[in-house]
Amino acid sequence: MRMYDLIEKKKCGHELSKEEIYYIVNGFTNGDIPDYQMSAFLMAVYFQNMTMEETVNLTMAMAESGDTLDLSAIEGIKVDKHSTGGVGDKTSLIIGPMLAALGVPVAKMSGRGLGHTGGTIDKLESFTGFSTVMPEKEFIKQVNDIHFALVGQTANLAPADKKIYALRDVTATVNHKSLIASSIMSKKIAAGADVIVLDVKTGTGAFMETVDEAIELAKIMVSIGTMAGRETIAIISDMNEPLGHNVGNALEVKEAIEVLNGKGEERLTKLSLTLAAYMLVGSKKAENVENAEQMLNDVIKSGKALDKLAEFVSCQGGDEQQVFNPDKLTIASKERKVSAWDDGYLAACDNKEVGKASLALGGGRETKESEVDLSVGLIVHKKLGDKIKKGELIATLYGNSDDKLDEAVKCIEHAYTIKNTPIKETPLIKAVITKDDLS
Amino acid sequence: MRMYDLIEKKKCGHELSKEEIYYIVNGFTNGDIPDYQMSAFLMAVYFQNMTMEETVNLTMAMAESGDTLDLSAIEGIKVDKHSTGGVGDKTSLIIGPMLAALGVPVAKMSGRGLGHTGGTIDKLESFTGFSTVMPEKEFIKQVNDIHFALVGQTANLAPADKKIYALRDVTATVNHKSLIASSIMSKKIAAGADVIVLDVKTGTGAFMETVDEAIELAKIMVSIGTMAGRETIAIISDMNEPLGHNVGNALEVKEAIEVLNGKGEERLTKLSLTLAAYMLVGSKKAENVENAEQMLNDVIKSGKALDKLAEFVSCQGGDEQQVFNPDKLTIASKERKVSAWDDGYLAACDNKEVGKASLALGGGRETKESEVDLSVGLIVHKKLGDKIKKGELIATLYGNSDDKLDEAVKCIEHAYTIKNTPIKETPLIKAVITKDDLS
Repeated sequence: MRMYDLIEKKKCGHELSKEEIYYIVNGFTNGDIPDYQMSAFLMAVYFQNMTMEETVNLTMAMAESGDTLDLSAIEGIKVDKHSTGGVGDKTSLIIGPMLAALGVPVAKMSGRGLGHTGGTIDKLESFTGFSTVMPEKEFIKQVNDIHFALVGQTANLAPADKKIYALRDVTATVNHKSLIASSIMSKKIAAGADVIVLDVKTGTGAFMETVDEAIELAKIMVSIGTMAGRETIAIISDMNEPLGHNVGNALEVKEAIEVLNGKGEERLTKLSLTLAAYMLVGSKKAENVENAEQMLNDVIKSGKALDKLAEFVSCQGGDEQQVFNPDKLTIASKERKVSAWDDGYLAACDNKEVGKASLALGGGRETKESEVDLSVGLIVHKKLGDKIKKGELIATLYGNSDDKLDEAVKCIEHAYTIKNTPIKETPLIKAVITKDDLS
Repeated sequence: MRMYDLIEKKKCGHELSKEEIYYIVNGFTNGDIPDYQMSAFLMAVYFQNMTMEETVNLTMAMAESGDTLDLSAIEGIKVDKHSTGGVGDKTSLIIGPMLAALGVPVAKMSGRGLGHTGGTIDKLESFTGFSTVMPEKEFIKQVNDIHFALVGQTANLAPADKKIYALRDVTATVNHKSLIASSIMSKKIAAGADVIVLDVKTGTGAFMETVDEAIELAKIMVSIGTMAGRETIAIISDMNEPLGHNVGNALEVKEAIEVLNGKGEERLTKLSLTLAAYMLVGSKKAENVENAEQMLNDVIKSGKALDKLAEFVSCQGGDEQQVFNPDKLTIASKERKVSAWDDGYLAACDNKEVGKASLALGGGRETKESEVDLSVGLIVHKKLGDKIKKGELIATLYGNSDDKLDEAVKCIEHAYTIKNTPIKETPLIKAVITKDDLS
């Protein structure tokens, strides 16, 4: 087999066999296939696409390219969640404690990643003393004891995906559905969960700008998961404005605690409950989504979910007092306010600009080496469709540098549009895709 | 400017500006743009194409990437010819002496290249003692003295093309018309000729299998040449069987001498005269193609063209006696004969197989390091359309190894098809494209 012939084959629109795809993935990962052939191949895939069978083979080849986690020492059905990424998305911080409080094992291995805020690990490090460094044995024991543990990624999960993604990132071949789907699913499959719930975002702050595109991506991922023997469900959710009010690291932790206190913003609460409900059903702890939502509401009302978060934070060395008194979390001291420049309705939000504001404040990573400032971020007080008066507060920004705050203010002013006619409300949940929706 | 953005722009089908194309070509040539970005870009070009303006800019950027020859010390209008490559094409060996005999300066710089036979330099090295190593001054002097000199490529002509072609060759992006056209024309423009005559082959042994494709490629090249201020004419010629009878190095020299003796095979003679006639008109030594053909016929009949070849060979250290007694050229001693396996008509030839036979005998280069055996090759005794009897001789093969001869015999048997119905003759010259044919 020669890589040249496989590039030519894909370029001409032919389907590659399983052996051919494994040859490409393994050859590229071990360095036999050079970058320049792989990037030409990926561009050919961009134009000629992959069949579902090719996409599944690509996913499995990448999933099998490194370690695969064995979670068999953890009792019960293991469920995992993945979001395609959005501004203000702190659902992981809410879902973990709720599910653990209901006895569902939540064994999360997380990276730090790049983005407009840090990842889940960074956010949780807002709790003084919190650490994700622990031996695997202790990790498994903690999951079995309190049903919830989070560890930094140590295993070499899907190295092929890592190497291919790095190449796509510099050759303009990121935005292709089969490649996105196989990248996400290869890591999820290698991470060992039995049930995978996907939150596919759509809107101005998401990879998939339209609902149709998001549904198409979701169907590919559900197909891959199903063919790989994992129960996979995808929720298509709105990302045309930040999820909830808060964007940042400590600020998002604060808002997650509000939800666990039963006082969360409506759409954030709704999405967290929906995702958790499908996970609960997948774990066989609930019969259906309605039952599951009731159970989840109950662990919030009873305070068990918040207690679980405190227990988890404490177990991992963090200060549990900050869970019950979130005002003890450190928030940057300098403030700026963005007020409405006109009367009217909050009509549109370019969510990418909101993400840029957070990044400008220092809340995220532009490169792997960036230091994340956990204390910075912003609170958006208004939601799309809200009636607004000139001078009324739209957002408050928190930062540690006047220059950065000035830059972030510009992003927020740029992000929002005020119009004098009301807008139609956008539904939060656009669709749910299960294996029954595949044709 | 960032290469990433330019890949994305081409991927989305947008036109690149002159500045953007120069940025890509210069950045890649000096190593600032890595192979993996260039190969992704080239694959995007394959799918999204280039406009004529982009193609011209690409050509000029490559032509200007290294040395450009200054032929101003040579008196008269400098004409150059380029063939897209075909089996048995020895027209350069015939045209050079004819034009020089008519006072047209033929200043040829040649590489060796890969192929089923060697290049023009290799072929001429069949003359004992012939050398193409000489200082530039002597080269210019020889052209002014006898109107004909051939030197090995020493100048760094179009290094960008060389580097880009090497990458295309391993990433399945060779077969794209804009890329082929710009590659050929960048070298011709850097080589300094005022008039460029292109021989674009079409048929089973050519890059462009159909006449329409060849015409399309020719129009692109004529456009580029015209926009670059060089008079450019393209002849579309048939390559559905070898040109003439002989394939190989010394064997092709022998056949070229036959033409210069007025005893050449009809189609080889016709094509050589046609190409030379357009060059003669371009050099302003003839008023029109008819006049030019008459002048060329005259220098053959008078023996002046053959004398010019002898003078040229002698000037460059070769044995001129071999020009007048071509049987003194060394031909391999082992022979194999391929005879007709049926009665009928020679109906089709897969010219690629004929090329393979020559390569199998050792007559060409598969890699830059290959040694070319100048003595091997084959003579095809029949032309397409010829009536043939079972047992009648189709071809004679000359080699220095029984194994290689056996392999080559198989290629020739594989190449030809005998059918029991006559076939229509294919015209040799399919079209002539000048700047007046551009819309």
